[in-house]
Amino acid sequence: MPDRALGVALIGTGFMGKCHALAWRTVSAVFGGAHPRLEILADVSEESAGRFAGQFGFARATADWQAAVTDPVVDVVSITAPNGLHRPMAEAALLAGKHVWLEKPMALTLEDAEAMAALAAAHPGQVTMLGYNYLRSPAFQAALAMVRRGEIGRLLAFRGVYDEDYSADPGLPWSWRMTHREGGLGALGDLGCHLVSQMLALMGPVRALTAQTQIAMPERPSPEGMKRVENEDSALALLTFASGAQGSFATSRVARGRKCRLQWELHGAEGTIVFDQENMNELLVHRAGEAGFVRHLTGPDQPDFAAFCPAPGHNFGFNEQKVIEARDLLAAIAGGPNVGPDFAKGLEIERIIHAMARSNGQRMVLMDEEG
Amino acid sequence: MPDRALGVALIGTGFMGKCHALAWRTVSAVFGGAHPRLEILADVSEESAGRFAGQFGFARATADWQAAVTDPVVDVVSITAPNGLHRPMAEAALLAGKHVWLEKPMALTLEDAEAMAALAAAHPGQVTMLGYNYLRSPAFQAALAMVRRGEIGRLLAFRGVYDEDYSADPGLPWSWRMTHREGGLGALGDLGCHLVSQMLALMGPVRALTAQTQIAMPERPSPEGMKRVENEDSALALLTFASGAQGSFATSRVARGRKCRLQWELHGAEGTIVFDQENMNELLVHRAGEAGFVRHLTGPDQPDFAAFCPAPGHNFGFNEQKVIEARDLLAAIAGGPNVGPDFAKGLEIERIIHAMARSNGQRMVLMDEEG
Amino acid sequence: MPDRALGVALIGTGFMGKCHALAWRTVSAVFGGAHPRLEILADVSEESAGRFAGQFGFARATADWQAAVTDPVVDVVSITAPNGLHRPMAEAALLAGKHVWLEKPMALTLEDAEAMAALAAAHPGQVTMLGYNYLRSPAFQAALAMVRRGEIGRLLAFRGVYDEDYSADPGLPWSWRMTHREGGLGALGDLGCHLVSQMLALMGPVRALTAQTQIAMPERPSPEGMKRVENEDSALALLTFASGAQGSFATSRVARGRKCRLQWELHGAEGTIVFDQENMNELLVHRAGEAGFVRHLTGPDQPDFAAFCPAPGHNFGFNEQKVIEARDLLAAIAGGPNVGPDFAKGLEIERIIHAMARSNGQRMVLMDEEG
Amino acid sequence: MPDRALGVALIGTGFMGKCHALAWRTVSAVFGGAHPRLEILADVSEESAGRFAGQFGFARATADWQAAVTDPVVDVVSITAPNGLHRPMAEAALLAGKHVWLEKPMALTLEDAEAMAALAAAHPGQVTMLGYNYLRSPAFQAALAMVRRGEIGRLLAFRGVYDEDYSADPGLPWSWRMTHREGGLGALGDLGCHLVSQMLALMGPVRALTAQTQIAMPERPSPEGMKRVENEDSALALLTFASGAQGSFATSRVARGRKCRLQWELHGAEGTIVFDQENMNELLVHRAGEAGFVRHLTGPDQPDFAAFCPAPGHNFGFNEQKVIEARDLLAAIAGGPNVGPDFAKGLEIERIIHAMARSNGQRMVLMDEEG
Repeated sequence: MPDRALGVALIGTGFMGKCHALAWRTVSAVFGGAHPRLEILADVSEESAGRFAGQFGFARATADWQAAVTDPVVDVVSITAPNGLHRPMAEAALLAGKHVWLEKPMALTLEDAEAMAALAAAHPGQVTMLGYNYLRSPAFQAALAMVRRGEIGRLLAFRGVYDEDYSADPGLPWSWRMTHREGGLGALGDLGCHLVSQMLALMGPVRALTAQTQIAMPERPSPEGMKRVENEDSALALLTFASGAQGSFATSRVARGRKCRLQWELHGAEGTIVFDQENMNELLVHRAGEAGFVRHLTGPDQPDFAAFCPAPGHNFGFNEQKVIEARDLLAAIAGGPNVGPDFAKGLEIERIIHAMARSNGQRMVLMDEEG
Repeated sequence: MPDRALGVALIGTGFMGKCHALAWRTVSAVFGGAHPRLEILADVSEESAGRFAGQFGFARATADWQAAVTDPVVDVVSITAPNGLHRPMAEAALLAGKHVWLEKPMALTLEDAEAMAALAAAHPGQVTMLGYNYLRSPAFQAALAMVRRGEIGRLLAFRGVYDEDYSADPGLPWSWRMTHREGGLGALGDLGCHLVSQMLALMGPVRALTAQTQIAMPERPSPEGMKRVENEDSALALLTFASGAQGSFATSRVARGRKCRLQWELHGAEGTIVFDQENMNELLVHRAGEAGFVRHLTGPDQPDFAAFCPAPGHNFGFNEQKVIEARDLLAAIAGGPNVGPDFAKGLEIERIIHAMARSNGQRMVLMDEEG
Repeated sequence: MPDRALGVALIGTGFMGKCHALAWRTVSAVFGGAHPRLEILADVSEESAGRFAGQFGFARATADWQAAVTDPVVDVVSITAPNGLHRPMAEAALLAGKHVWLEKPMALTLEDAEAMAALAAAHPGQVTMLGYNYLRSPAFQAALAMVRRGEIGRLLAFRGVYDEDYSADPGLPWSWRMTHREGGLGALGDLGCHLVSQMLALMGPVRALTAQTQIAMPERPSPEGMKRVENEDSALALLTFASGAQGSFATSRVARGRKCRLQWELHGAEGTIVFDQENMNELLVHRAGEAGFVRHLTGPDQPDFAAFCPAPGHNFGFNEQKVIEARDLLAAIAGGPNVGPDFAKGLEIERIIHAMARSNGQRMVLMDEEG
Repeated sequence: MPDRALGVALIGTGFMGKCHALAWRTVSAVFGGAHPRLEILADVSEESAGRFAGQFGFARATADWQAAVTDPVVDVVSITAPNGLHRPMAEAALLAGKHVWLEKPMALTLEDAEAMAALAAAHPGQVTMLGYNYLRSPAFQAALAMVRRGEIGRLLAFRGVYDEDYSADPGLPWSWRMTHREGGLGALGDLGCHLVSQMLALMGPVRALTAQTQIAMPERPSPEGMKRVENEDSALALLTFASGAQGSFATSRVARGRKCRLQWELHGAEGTIVFDQENMNELLVHRAGEAGFVRHLTGPDQPDFAAFCPAPGHNFGFNEQKVIEARDLLAAIAGGPNVGPDFAKGLEIERIIHAMARSNGQRMVLMDEEG
C-alpha cells in the first residue's frame, strides 16, 4: 500500500461515480496505507459538481474535465463518464502524466480501444486499470485460487452467462445508447465484457470462437415514432480456449427477471465450480469423491473478505468489490504488480466481444488473426 | 383409454426394462381403462427372462426376442435393449404388425433412424412411440402449457443443458459404448437427444445450428492397454429456430457432480421459465410485473399429476413419468392423437444431434438441407 | 419377502386408498417376492367400490367393510377410511385374525389408540403397521443411517416443522373435521404426527415437553352461519429427549404457500443434517471440517432407491414411499422384524401429540407420567 | 440529515470498531448531510489506538476512554468495547452530555441495562442507539413495510432462529466469555438479542414466553484443565404476542455449518414472508392467490438500497447496514424521530432474553410482570 497520499480526480457522479467515491473514501481505512486526497470532482455542470463534491468529500468541483485531468494536484483520475468519452478522457489523463482508473467497456469501437492501449503502452510508468469489479469479489478470487491450486484438475469446459432485464420492456424508449455510433456494442459491451473478464482469468486465452447476436426488439418508441435499434440485445458464442478446453457464452439485456445474473460454471477433470453474482457470497463446489455440491459461503478465510469483516456468512457487498479494486490500483501505483486488467488486457477483452459481434454464426473466428 | 386389454411383450430388464414394467403394471390403475395383459418377457437368457417374468408379473418368458415380437398374443412391444438392437427389433415388430414403444435414441446411425421412420410411415395403422420420458413430467407439461397460452409472450431465446457425470472418472474403463460402430453418438445420443426433445416441443423447429464437440478423455484404460474413445464426451451448439428465436445448447457426460441436470430456461418477451430435472417438481417462473421468480411446485392443478396424487408439493417421481408415457401410447393405440414423439418426430431429433456431431464449429448447418 | 401370495382387502379409494392400491400392485415387481392377490375392495357404495375395483385391479367389490375384513381369502387389510372409522375397522380386522395396515393417525382419541394398541398386543401373531410413509423415503433413511453411524456425533438438538396451507383460506367452510368428536385433533393429528414419527426415529424417546396451540380462525362459515372450530390450526412445542438433547416443534395447517413442508434439522456435536419433504430428493449435510453444507441427491447408494432406479438424481416420488412401506409390511408378515411403527409405537406418537394438545404452554409435561 | 458536523469518538477497533469507523467515513457520502468529524479513537493501548487512528482517519488517539468520552470536541461516542464495559462507558458518555451509539447487548446483567435505561431517560436531550444492525438491512425494511401495509394480513405466527457455529468445536478453549460474571448470557446475549430485535419490530410486544436453555458442552479445556461453562450454548422458546399471535424462537452458538443463520418466517392470514441473513439480499414472499413463493431480490425500490446503488440484484453488504444505522442516529441527533432501538427499547430486548434464560421450560413467564 502506498505511503504517499495520492491526489484523486473523479469524473462522473452516477452509479459508478458514487461507487468510485465510496471506494476512495474507504480503501485505506479497510486496507491501511496513506489515505488518498480527494481533490477534484468533475461533472456535467458546476451545480452538480459542487453538490456532489460536498457529498463525496472532494476539495474542489468543476464542470471542466480537461482542467481536472491536467491539474498538478491530481495523481490518478477515475473516469466514470459515458462510454463515448472514455477515449478522450483516458488519453488526456495519460498525456497529462496521470494514472487512469477507467470504467468498462474501454471504448465504443475496437479502433478506439487499440489506440488507448497503444498510448498506455507508450506511458509505461503510469498505471491503467479497468473497472471489472466482479473480478475482485472474494468468491471469485476463491474460485480462481481453487483453479490455480488444481483443485478441480485440468479444465474441460466453461459455461457462462450474464443476463439482466433492463431493456426487456418493449415499451422502453429508443435511446442513443442503442446506436453503434454513440452506444457502441449492446449487451456485449454492457454485460458480456464482464463475463469475458472472468472467463479469461479462469480459462486463459481464447483460440477461436463462433457467435451469433440477436436484436430481440428491432424498433423502440421515440417521440418521432418507432426508431431502429442497432446494437445487440443478446449474444451467444461457442469458444475454444488455447488450453484445448471449450466453452459456451451467453449474454442478454432482455432476460425478464434477471437482475445481475453473471453466472458460470467450470468443469474440471476433478471437480466443478458454480457461481452466480446474484448470490455473490457463495460458491457451489464439487470435487471428485464428495457426495454432492458444497455451498461455500464467503468468509475471512478469503483474504480480501477478512479485511472487511472477521465473521463468515456476513455478506460482502457489490460496492465493496470496488474498494478492493482501488486497493489493487494503489498497490500497482506504489510499484507492485498490476493485477489488472490494464489497457492491454482490456484490449484483449474488447477483441473478444467485437469478434462475437461480427461473427454472426456463419464462421469460426480465430482469435490470433484478430490482433 | 383403451376398452380392450392389449397384450404386451417387453424386451429388456435393466434400468428402462424395469421402468417399462412398472408403467405397464400401473397405467390403468392410475388413469383407468382396460389393464394391459403382460404376456411375454424377453431377456438375454432363459434364466434371467424367467426370473424377471416372475418379478414383473409377465405370463411367459423367453430368450428369443424374435419369437416374442411375432407372437399373436402380443399387440405392443416395449424395446429396452441396447441401442444397437433398436433397429432390428423395431423393424421386426413393425413387420409383425405390432405397436412399438422404443427407448431412445432411435438407433446408432442416422441412416438406421431414417430406415426405421420410413418403415413406420409404411405402417400407418401401428403406433410408434419413443421413450422421451422427460416430456411427460407434470412440470414440463405445465411449462409447455404456459408457453402455448402465451404467458411469457413471444419466445426470444432457449438456453439448455443436459449434464451428467457417469463418464467423468478418468479411470472408467474403455467400453464398446465409446465406439461409433457399437455405441453410436456419445453424450449427444445418451443425453443430448432428451434435451432436443424438450427444446423442439417448447421452441418449434430448428432452422440452423453450429456446434462443436469434445472428447475430454481421448483414451480409456482396457485390459489390452489404453484404447481410443471415438464418440463425444460433450457438445455445445448455437441454434436459430424457425421462429427467429435463438438458443444455446450443451451436453456433457463428464460434468463432475451433475446427476441428471437437464436444465433449461426460456426467455420470452413477457417472462422467463426455468427448469432443472434434478428438482423436477418445481418451475421457476417470472412474468413481467412480478417482483421476482415464483417457485411453482407441482400439484394437482397439473392434470397428469392429479391422477397420481391430489396433494400439491407431494413429489412426483422419475418412474411415474413413464406411466404417463404409457397412457399416451395407449391413448394413441385406442385411436386418439399420438402426442409422440413417434418415429417421424424421433428422426427430427436424430437429425439435430447428428448435425451437431458433424458441425465441429467450422460452419453453420442449415437444418432444411439435412433432411 | 414372502413366498406365499397374501390376500389383500383395501378399504377406501381416496388419496390414500389409491396410494395403497398402487403400492400393492407394484411392491413385488420392485422388490421381488410373491405378488399379493388383490381380493376385495370396499368403499362407501357398491357403485364406487365396483368402479375402483376395476381400476385398481381387485377381484371383488363391496360396500360392506365388515364382510371384507372377515372374508377368509383376506390375509391383510389396508384401512384408508376416515379417522373416526380407524378403531372399529382395525379392531374388527384384528379380531378376524388379519394383519392390519392402517393410515395415520391411529384414532380420534388417545383412549381409542390405547384400546387398539392393547388389542394388537393381545394378537402378537398378527402384524400391525401405521402409514407413516415419510419414514420410508430414501433421503430420510439415509439421514437415519448417518445418525446411527455417528456421522454427526452426539445429537444436541432437533428443530422440526410440518406446515401446509390447506386450511389457510378464511373462507374455507366449516367441516365436521374441525370438531373434537368427529375430527379429533387438528394440525397435530393431520400433520404433526408425521413429524413426531420422524423425530422419534431420529432422536429417541421424549422425556418432557411444553406446548401451546392456536386456533387461528376460530369460526368458519357454514350454511347455518359461522360455526366454531374446535381443533388446533397450529401447535408449537419445546422438547427434552431422554438423551438430554433438546428440540423445537411446530406444525400448522394455515401456513400460506406451504404445501408439504415437513422440514427439520438435526444438530450434532460433529455435524448438521437438514431435510425438507418439498425437496424430498435431497439432504443438506455438514460435517466438521467441511467447507459448508453438501447437497446429497438421492441415488442408488441408498438401498431402497436402488430397487426403483439405478441412476442418481432421478427423483424418487411421494407414492413410491408407500411401496417401501408395503415391502416392510410384507417382510414382517413373512416373519422378519417389524420396523413399524406398529400399534405400540403408534400409541407413543399419539401420546406425544395429545400431550401437546393439552399442554397449552402453562406447564411442562413429563412423558413418563403420560402412559 | 444534520447540517452541523458532529465530533465523533470511537472506542474499540475490533470487528465492530472497524464497522463503526467505515460507517462514520461514508454515511454522508451515501446519504448527504454534513460529514462527521472523526476526532478521537480510543483503544486498549496507545500503540494500537495510534495505529488505528491513522488507518481509520481519526484526528487523535488515546488509551484513556474516559478522556475520550468527556472531550469537548466530541458530540457522539461509538462504544464497541467488550460487553462488561458497556455500562460504565455509556454512563460516562451520557453524564458528559454525549450522544451514545452502543453495540449490543446493552450490558452483562438486566440490572445494568435497567440502570442504563434509567440514566438515558434522565437525559432526554441525548440520543441513544443500540447496534442492532440487522434491523437496517433493505430486505428487512422491505419485509417490515409489507407487514405494515397489511400485505400478508393479520399476523398469525413467527418462527425464528439465529444460529452460528463459532463455539461448536468441543476443543474450543474455555474463556471468561463463558462465565456469567464476565460474559453475561451466552447465545442469547450474542445472537438471540438480534433475533428478538427483529421479532419485536415485526410482531409487536411479547405477552408471555416459555423457554429452555442448554449447555451442550458443559466443560471446556483450559491451561488449568477442564473448566465449567456457565452460560447457555443454545436456547429455545415459545411465545405469545400481545396481538394474540404465537411464535417459536431458537438460537445456538454450536450449530455446525451455520455462519449467520438469522432466519425467520412470518405467517399471516394472507401470506408468508421468509428471510435468512446468510442470503440477506432476498426475501421469499407468498401472498394468497400467487402460485408459490416469489424471490424478491433487494434493489433500488427499497429506499435505503437506492442510496448505495441504482441497480437491483447488485448485492448489499453486511457492513453497509451499519451505514444506515449511522444515518438513523444522525437523523435523531438532528431532531428527527429516533427509530431506535434506544436504551428504553433495548431494555425491552434485554428483559426478553433474560426471561428466556431464567425460564428453563418449567413455567410460562408473563412479560408484564417482568418490568
